Formats: sequence, C-alpha cells, structure tokens
Amino acid sequence: MRTYDCIAKKRDGEELTEEEIHYLISSYVAGDIPDYQMAAFLMAVYFQGMTDKETSIMTQEVARSGDMVDLSAIQGIKVDKHSTGGVGDKTSMIVAPIAAACGLKVAKMSGRGLGHTGGTVDKLEAIPGFRTTLTMEEFVDVVNRTGLSIVGQSGNLAPADKKMYALRDVTATVDSIPLIAVSIMGKKLAAGDDCILLDVKTGSGAFMKTLEGSVELAKTMVSIGGAAGKKTAALITNMDIPLGNYIGNALEVAEAVEVLKGGGPSDLREVCLHLAANMLELADKGNFAECMETARKTLEDGSAFSKFLEMVEAQGGDISCIRDTSRLPFAPLRHEVRARKEGYIAHMDTQACGTASVLLGAGRETKESLLDYGAGIILKKKTGDYVKEGDVLAEFLASEEKRFPAAEEKFHSALTIAAERPEKEKLILGKVSANCTEIF
Amino acid sequence: MRTYDCIAKKRDGEELTEEEIHYLISSYVAGDIPDYQMAAFLMAVYFQGMTDKETSIMTQEVARSGDMVDLSAIQGIKVDKHSTGGVGDKTSMIVAPIAAACGLKVAKMSGRGLGHTGGTVDKLEAIPGFRTTLTMEEFVDVVNRTGLSIVGQSGNLAPADKKMYALRDVTATVDSIPLIAVSIMGKKLAAGDDCILLDVKTGSGAFMKTLEGSVELAKTMVSIGGAAGKKTAALITNMDIPLGNYIGNALEVAEAVEVLKGGGPSDLREVCLHLAANMLELADKGNFAECMETARKTLEDGSAFSKFLEMVEAQGGDISCIRDTSRLPFAPLRHEVRARKEGYIAHMDTQACGTASVLLGAGRETKESLLDYGAGIILKKKTGDYVKEGDVLAEFLASEEKRFPAAEEKFHSALTIAAERPEKEKLILGKVSANCTEIF
Repeated sequence: MRTYDCIAKKRDGEELTEEEIHYLISSYVAGDIPDYQMAAFLMAVYFQGMTDKETSIMTQEVARSGDMVDLSAIQGIKVDKHSTGGVGDKTSMIVAPIAAACGLKVAKMSGRGLGHTGGTVDKLEAIPGFRTTLTMEEFVDVVNRTGLSIVGQSGNLAPADKKMYALRDVTATVDSIPLIAVSIMGKKLAAGDDCILLDVKTGSGAFMKTLEGSVELAKTMVSIGGAAGKKTAALITNMDIPLGNYIGNALEVAEAVEVLKGGGPSDLREVCLHLAANMLELADKGNFAECMETARKTLEDGSAFSKFLEMVEAQGGDISCIRDTSRLPFAPLRHEVRARKEGYIAHMDTQACGTASVLLGAGRETKESLLDYGAGIILKKKTGDYVKEGDVLAEFLASEEKRFPAAEEKFHSALTIAAERPEKEKLILGKVSANCTEIF
Repeated sequence: MRTYDCIAKKRDGEELTEEEIHYLISSYVAGDIPDYQMAAFLMAVYFQGMTDKETSIMTQEVARSGDMVDLSAIQGIKVDKHSTGGVGDKTSMIVAPIAAACGLKVAKMSGRGLGHTGGTVDKLEAIPGFRTTLTMEEFVDVVNRTGLSIVGQSGNLAPADKKMYALRDVTATVDSIPLIAVSIMGKKLAAGDDCILLDVKTGSGAFMKTLEGSVELAKTMVSIGGAAGKKTAALITNMDIPLGNYIGNALEVAEAVEVLKGGGPSDLREVCLHLAANMLELADKGNFAECMETARKTLEDGSAFSKFLEMVEAQGGDISCIRDTSRLPFAPLRHEVRARKEGYIAHMDTQACGTASVLLGAGRETKESLLDYGAGIILKKKTGDYVKEGDVLAEFLASEEKRFPAAEEKFHSALTIAAERPEKEKLILGKVSANCTEIF
C-alpha cells in the first residue's frame, strides 16, 4: 500500500477502504508516514470530506491506536457525557452526579481547557486536594463505590488523535466535521462506556458557529457511536451566550454546587436536566418525561449533591470547600465592569467573553501557561437585560491588577447594546438520536 | 506573518498578497517553514487554484530563490525553448540549431528524463564525450562562439522549485496547473533569456492529457512570462502519438541529425519548423510565414546541421558520431515486435510507449537508475497505419535479452487495433501569445 495513492484517492473524492484507513492511521502513529504526507491527506479530507463509513472506520482505528479502557469491573450501565466545549460550561460537574444519583455509572475522562473554552479537569482541580490523575484501579474503585468519577485522560488514550490533532492545529485542517467527529469519538470509543451522550454546543462561543454545522457534526458522531455498538445520542445546545453566570474554574465549581443544592441560574439548571434526562433515556430508564422527573428529583432531594460530595472526597478533595464554596480559592482582587451606554444587551460574543476570562488568568493562552484557578468573571447582566450607563455588567476576579484593563476591553467588545430587546433564544436547539433528528 | 494564516487564507479561496507569497517561499527554502505546513498549503492550492497575480508573484519568488543566470555577456537576442515533455521529443536538438543558424542566441538549460518522458540532457550525453556540465564562463563562451549551447541546470537554479517539486511528488499535488506553471516558469525566469517559447504537449504521452488543460497551462505560463517582462508564447502540440519514429537517447540523436540534414520523418520536421518559426517571430524576425521560410532554409542549406556540429564539438562531443550516426553507441541486441492482429492502428497510448522504452533501459524508473543510452524503440508503424498479423510494428534495442518480454507486452498494451481508419490528428493544436489564443 502506498501513502501517495491514499492521498490521491481522497483528493479525487473517492472512498478509502478499511485496509487503506488502517494503513494510514497505524503507519502514522508508528512514524512510518511522515507529517507532510498526513498534512496533505488531511487537507484533502478538508475539501472532499469522508463518507460515514470512512469516518466510522477511522474513528475505530484512532480508538484502537492506544489503550482501550476496560470498564468491565464496573457493575451497571456505564454512561459517558461529552461536550464540544463552551464558555461557562460546568455541566459535567452537575450532570454526572445527577446520573449517578439515578443509578447510572459515570466513569468519565475529561479534558483540559485550551483557547477560550474551559475544561472539566481544570475546574475540579480548583478544589483543594482534588486528584484528577488516578490509577485505573482507583478509577474503577471510585466509580464502584460512589457511582461516578471524573479524571483526566490517560496518557496513551487514542495517541493517533493526539498526533493528528497537533498536526491539524498547525495546518489549518481543524475545521473539518468528519475530522472533528473522529477526534472526539476516537477518545470516547477508547474510554469504554456503554452509552454516550454528546452535548454539541452551537453559537459564538462554540467551535461550531452554526446550527447547520452542529447538526451535521452531531449526526456524524451519533452514526460513529452506533456503528461501534454504543448507544449514542446528541443534544444541540445554545452557546451563543455564556452558560450560567460564572466563568472561571473555582467560580464554576461554586455555581455547579448551587445547582446541585437545588438553586443556581435557571438556564444552567435546565440544560443540565436535559442532558441528564437524555443520559437516563439512553440507559433505558424510562421515557423522556419520566427521565426529566427522575433527574429533577435528585436536585430537590439532595441526592445529586451527595454524590458530588462522595466523589470529591473519594478523589482527595477538600469537601469543606464544597459545603461552603466561599472557602474555594478565589482570586483576591475584584473589579467591577460598568455599562458604557444604555440599552438592551442584544448579543454577547461568547468566545470574546471566554477570552476575557483567559486574560484574567482563568485559561491557558498556550499549552504551557499556568492557570489561576481563582480568576474569572461573574456576570451580572446577560443577553436580553436592559442596562443604564454605569450599571455593573460583571465582576472580574484576578490575582494581578494589570490583568483587568485588557480583559475589560475584550469584554466590552463582546457586547452589542441596542435599542430593541432581542428575541429570547432557545437553550436546547435540537436532538439527534440513532433514528431521528429533531430541531426544536 | 504566520504560515497558518497563509494556509487558512488559501484554503478559504482568498488571494494571497505579495508579502505573504514572499514569506512562504523564502521561509520554506530557508527551512523555517516545515514540509507539513507547505504540504497542506500545496493541497489547498490544488483545490482552490491561484490567481494570475499570485501565480506570477510566486514564480518570480521561485526564480529568485537561487542563482539568477546572467546572460548579459551574450550578444544578441537570447531565446529559450521549453517543452513540457513527451515521448520521442527530440525537438530541442533540432530547433536550437535552426534558431542559431537564423542569428538568434540559444542559451538553454535542459532537464533529465524521469518517468516515461526523456530529457534533452540525457540524449546529448549519448554522444561520446559530450559535456552537459559547463562552467558559466564556458556556457557563455560556447553561445558567443557558436550561437547555441545546451547544458544541464546549474545546481542552485530555483532551489525553491526543487524543494517544492520533491514535496509535491510525494503528496499528490503535482497535477495543479498553477503549480506546474510556477515550476516550469520559475526555472525559465532564472535562466535569464529574453524570449521564451513554450511547447505544451497534449495527449496520452503528455503530463497534460486534455487540450483544455493544455490551453489553461499555456495561458498561465504566457501570462507569467509577460508579467516578468519576457516575450513569451506557447504552442500546443500533439503528444497523443510519439513524435518521430525513434524513442531512446542515442536513437533520438540519430533522428535529430536526419532532420538537421534535411530528411527525417515529416511530423517531427513540421513540429520543429513551427517551434523555430515561433522563436524567430518572438524575436521580431518577421511575420510567421517569413519565419517559417527562414527556418526551412536552414535545414535545406545545411546551416542548422553546421550549428549542431559546432555545438557538439564545442562541448567536447565526438562529431564523427554525428557525421555518421551509425557510430553512436546503440545497444547490441535487437528484437522485432510483430502485430498480433490485423487492422488499423487506431491509437497509441503514448505514455505506455514511453514506459516500454524505459523498460528497455532507455529511461529511469527511479532517480537513481542508470540509463542505457543505446536502448530504445524504432517505430515501423504508427497511428493510422494498416497492419497485417505478423507485420513488424517496431524494432527494440536493448543490452539484455531479459528486457524484451515486459517491454513488448507494454508496447502491445499501448496499441488499439481497429477496423476503421482513425482520423488524422493535427500536429499543432493551438497557439497562445500575450494577446491571443488560437485553437487550430
């Protein structure tokens, strides 16, 4: 088999065979195909796309390129939940405890933040003592004892994805729906769960800016999951506005706890309940309405919060900071951002909001940057609110005074103030399951 | 400037600026842009193309990436001729002497054969003693004394092209008209001539298989030449049938000599006269009819042949082999290939004919292969001829008996024998000049 022929075939819009895809992925990981040939191949995929069959095969090759996590020692239905990433997206910390409180097993490997979006592993590490690196035995043990565990990805999970993603990142081939789907689902298939619920974010704060693209990505991923024998569904949720009111690691833990205690902002609570209910539905725990009801109860009766406490304790975290979130390590300096003119907030460029938070220290500008777990943004006003000049729009937290000006400018640039009240946008925009695509 | 942004811009179909193209080419040659980013860029160009402006700028950057040949020490109008490559294409050895005999200066750098096509430098090296590597001083001196010289490319001519071509060759990005044009014209602009006549071959033995593609390539190259201040034109000539009857290095020298002596096959003679007349026209030596007449005379009066002898002698070649071509080093073994059925030769897959010649030893299967200068094919029948079973179609020359069977099978596979006489195809299919495209 010649790499050249595989590139030329894809360039000419033909479908690659299972053998050819196996050859490409395994030889690339082994170092037998040079980066320059893979770069040309990936750019050809950018233009020509891949069929569902090619995408499924490539995903399974990516999954098999490293360790396949064996969760067979965990009793019960193992359900994973994955978000494509957004701003203020602390849903995993809420949804996993809800699902565990309903009897599911949530053995979840999460990522770190990069760019304007956060990562669950970073957020959990804002809890003093919380360990996101467990041995496989510890991970299985925590899930068996508490029903849930969230850890970082093991070093050798889908190394083909790691290598391809690094190449795509410098060759302008990230924005390809089949390649995004392969990347996400390759890791999910390797992670060993029975059911996978995907949260495809859409809008200005998401990687997918349009509903159309999000639906296509969701369909592709659901098809990959199905082909691999996993029960898979996807919700398409709104990321054209930050989710909840808190952005930043310790801040998002605090807001997640509010929701787990039965409070918190309604947008965040509703999205979490939808996600949890869909996980329950995937695990055959009833119809959607029943699953919503079951999920909602765990917030009211404190069982989801208990699950969260159990997990934090099992992973070495200081639960006194969860019982009283004011003890979380918030940054010492505060700065109020005030409206510069009067009107309705017509739109919030959510990526810019995320970038403002990164500028405060809450995210990584490069892979090597250190995080300030205590930094971030508390939103006081959001899209649809009416503001007068001088009204407090947000409160910024940082550890250095010098971080405020650039973050403030970025935040103001994110806002569109208008005379007209914007129409209220839906939180849940669509749902894709094996047999059905619904747009709400 | 970021390489990533240049890739993304081209990927999205936007036009790159002069600065961006300068950055890409100069940084790539300097080793500051890795192959994997250039490979992604080239694949993006494959899909999105380049504007005339981008193509011109890139060609000039490629030309300037190494030595720019200074021909100012040569008196008179310096005219170059370049063929895109074909099978049996020995025109340079005929056209350059004709042009020199008409008073033009032909200082020509030629390439070697690769794949199914031959190269002028290889052919000239079939003449015992002939040196294709001259110092710059020797090169200029030979042109000043004899009116012509044909040498191999200097080591540092357009190194950007060398590096990019090697990358394109392994990343399936060769077949891009703007990139082909940049590659050819980059070397031509660096070679320092005043006028450039291009011979764009079209058909089964050419890199461009279709007239449409050939016209597009010709237009692109003529536009590049004009933008660089060179008088440039292109003929589109038929390569759907081998040119002349001899394929192979020493064999082609012999056939070129036949034409220079006023004989030889009419197809070869006519193509050469058209090429020479167009060179004269570019150099303002009269209208086309006058130029044809001038060129024709040099074959009749022996002046073109004299020029060829002068050049061979000046470059160290044994002119006794030119005066009596039977003294050229032909391969010792001969094998007749006979028709397997009766009918008209309706088509000759010319690339396959070239490959048959390579299999006899006349070409390189890889860059490292050694050539057998004496091997090749003497065609006895060509497209349009009627053959009976057992008629001799061709005579093969090789140095090893074992080379004949595979070459014979390849040659038979090239032939289509049919009951109907095929229509006679034109030799000269079109002409592209600065202001005008004619299709004949």
